[in-house]
Amino acid sequence: MQTPWEYRYAHRTQRMGSSVIRELLKLTEQPDIISFAGGLPAPDVFPVKEFQKACNAVLEQHGAQALQYSTTEGYRPLREMIARHTARYAVEVTADNILITSGSQQALDFIGRLFINRGDYILVESPTYLGALQAWNAYGAQYISVPMDEHGMIVDELEAALRVGPKFIYVLPNFQNPSGSTLSLERRKKLVELADKYGVPIVEDDPYGQLRYEGDHIPSVVALDSEFRGPNGGHYRGNVIYLSTFSKLLAPGLRLAWVIAPPEVIRRLVMAKQAADLHTASFNQYVAHEVANDGFLDEHVKYIRQVYKERRDTMLEMMEEMFPPEMRWTHPLGGMFLWGIMPEGTDAADALKVAIERKVAFVPGAAFHANGGGANTMRINFSYSTPATIREGITRMGTVLKELLHKNGNGHK
Amino acid sequence: MQTPWEYRYAHRTQRMGSSVIRELLKLTEQPDIISFAGGLPAPDVFPVKEFQKACNAVLEQHGAQALQYSTTEGYRPLREMIARHTARYAVEVTADNILITSGSQQALDFIGRLFINRGDYILVESPTYLGALQAWNAYGAQYISVPMDEHGMIVDELEAALRVGPKFIYVLPNFQNPSGSTLSLERRKKLVELADKYGVPIVEDDPYGQLRYEGDHIPSVVALDSEFRGPNGGHYRGNVIYLSTFSKLLAPGLRLAWVIAPPEVIRRLVMAKQAADLHTASFNQYVAHEVANDGFLDEHVKYIRQVYKERRDTMLEMMEEMFPPEMRWTHPLGGMFLWGIMPEGTDAADALKVAIERKVAFVPGAAFHANGGGANTMRINFSYSTPATIREGITRMGTVLKELLHKNGNGHK
Repeated sequence: MQTPWEYRYAHRTQRMGSSVIRELLKLTEQPDIISFAGGLPAPDVFPVKEFQKACNAVLEQHGAQALQYSTTEGYRPLREMIARHTARYAVEVTADNILITSGSQQALDFIGRLFINRGDYILVESPTYLGALQAWNAYGAQYISVPMDEHGMIVDELEAALRVGPKFIYVLPNFQNPSGSTLSLERRKKLVELADKYGVPIVEDDPYGQLRYEGDHIPSVVALDSEFRGPNGGHYRGNVIYLSTFSKLLAPGLRLAWVIAPPEVIRRLVMAKQAADLHTASFNQYVAHEVANDGFLDEHVKYIRQVYKERRDTMLEMMEEMFPPEMRWTHPLGGMFLWGIMPEGTDAADALKVAIERKVAFVPGAAFHANGGGANTMRINFSYSTPATIREGITRMGTVLKELLHKNGNGHK
Repeated sequence: MQTPWEYRYAHRTQRMGSSVIRELLKLTEQPDIISFAGGLPAPDVFPVKEFQKACNAVLEQHGAQALQYSTTEGYRPLREMIARHTARYAVEVTADNILITSGSQQALDFIGRLFINRGDYILVESPTYLGALQAWNAYGAQYISVPMDEHGMIVDELEAALRVGPKFIYVLPNFQNPSGSTLSLERRKKLVELADKYGVPIVEDDPYGQLRYEGDHIPSVVALDSEFRGPNGGHYRGNVIYLSTFSKLLAPGLRLAWVIAPPEVIRRLVMAKQAADLHTASFNQYVAHEVANDGFLDEHVKYIRQVYKERRDTMLEMMEEMFPPEMRWTHPLGGMFLWGIMPEGTDAADALKVAIERKVAFVPGAAFHANGGGANTMRINFSYSTPATIREGITRMGTVLKELLHKNGNGHK
């Protein structure tokens, strides 16, 4: 007889769904669609030649180790490099504060595994990163949402949410995915203080911190927390678990990211990783270390900033020119996304259906809201497409939006 | 104030422990210890030159794709190559039956995530693979153990265990880790029939199937299940989820393995993987495909067999010569491990303490038993050390065992 698999699945699978974003990414495979839906870096900025040199060097000098099983924590010289990089941003850490993960998505999964009991509340921004919701749904999380404006999470609403008793606060302070907003310095300080007051840890997700195109760097939440607590002899022991990644600085196809946390949390994360996949690919860690060492990464990041700034500027200019006046959008200071806001009562999913017919795509914003809302919003990626493609794609989107909004009687043109 | 992290952890972390094996692996870092404790392939057999050629070819021809985000299912040409390989062993599959995972450990984790509700029983061999227990403990599994002999799981005891109502059966039919036993053809057929009779799925874990040093290949459980059910037009739709890996054929440092399952199970595993780490490193998949294509892998596997056979034979000869007569051990037909059995009432953990002082190491067998027992057993790896090192290491072990067993009054010499 056939096996009726659907009755074998565990309870937790009921909230598993295929990601809207991952499904939409399939659209980017159709060559005639201009997709602003994905969250892909531009392949133009991958340092292919440097990778080639690094692969050869690693295999010649460290072949036996780089191809062998290795420790769960990650390749020590890579962790030491990350510790040095982190110290430049006023967070005192050593390799014992760092775990290498297979992308930040894996770090989010492990954080869920470590902290979330079924029914626990997690405090998130609204909107927030969809991948975090997917990771934590599997562990039975519920969410308290704090609304955002152009300066990030509205911290005046944070205290009420903290009194719910969340397991932790999840925040993306720099050029947030999806909204493109940046949390202001004043709000970051307030966040650190309130989290300490209520004894609630913070998970800071910072994939884009290095990709700023205007304005001054704002200290990370982990740095402000570190300052708040005072020095601890080289080991960070604060209230923040910090995530970042090589996906946007080198290449996502390596699946290399890292977690910074107090050593006792790292030890627990290491146990989670042992059971989940033993360790991140040794070879990739050696290669990333070889590529990123000797200051190459600093220079390379400058180049990425220049490429993405031009794309962001092109998109903003074109939106100004082509989008209907009812449409609003954010002006991101960095990162890869901006956020479009249609008038209240309209639905970005309707807009997407028409847009796909006109061969252009974006992500409707509703899925990024843990507790509903945001039907009139959309995430638009500006890092992947060339300026010429952005011009054509925004022109197509402008036509779709004008039609839709004016048909709804919202237009004045 | 300091964050009291230990009160934030979820319930499931209570059964998380650092792996005995992983901790013991740290011993292998001390250069004066001869370690038969790890489960490492010999670095001598890593095809470093072929990797170098492959990295260069992939970066030259597919740089932009191999470094980019990719689909969760895995690189299609790699999945197609695995499907062709599998068809040679009488299992009709297509790429839609295959998911690429970051090592088999990740496949075990996803199987736990997909199927195990807290308290569910999993039917395992006794002893069984420790990594599977670690993966499934996190999901709250309980275990029913079926004892083994030199021909694998004793299927006469299987039916009683099946009436407990396990969620699935977990079996390592070839050169099992840890025992080195191989499930006989007759027992495999009986296993498939009984699993079908009770409607219980089978998870077949086969990392070493290609590494046979004597005797004829025995069809895999998935192949026998396929035969049992008859053809299905190219899509396997049976009762077995089959795992295998490139870790022992190419190199574990790539973290590349695969799952073969009915398409509806693959779709669910894909959702689990999206939430867990998006996808396995694209670059590694391109490189493995480049290395393994064109028949290289077949030739390479012949070479590995030759190297490991010599090591196994050396170890068996030395044990015959050096071990006390009270000691018994398995004669594995392939794989990487053999199983030592001391007299009842002795403890291999005691032996390890002395062994480490004498600069030799192995893994005490108790941890491989899901429901206790096996204190007098040990896992001994023969793949990692050279024949000369094996000779010296087994000589050291022989001295330790003679002392221990004769002190206990078990000796006759």
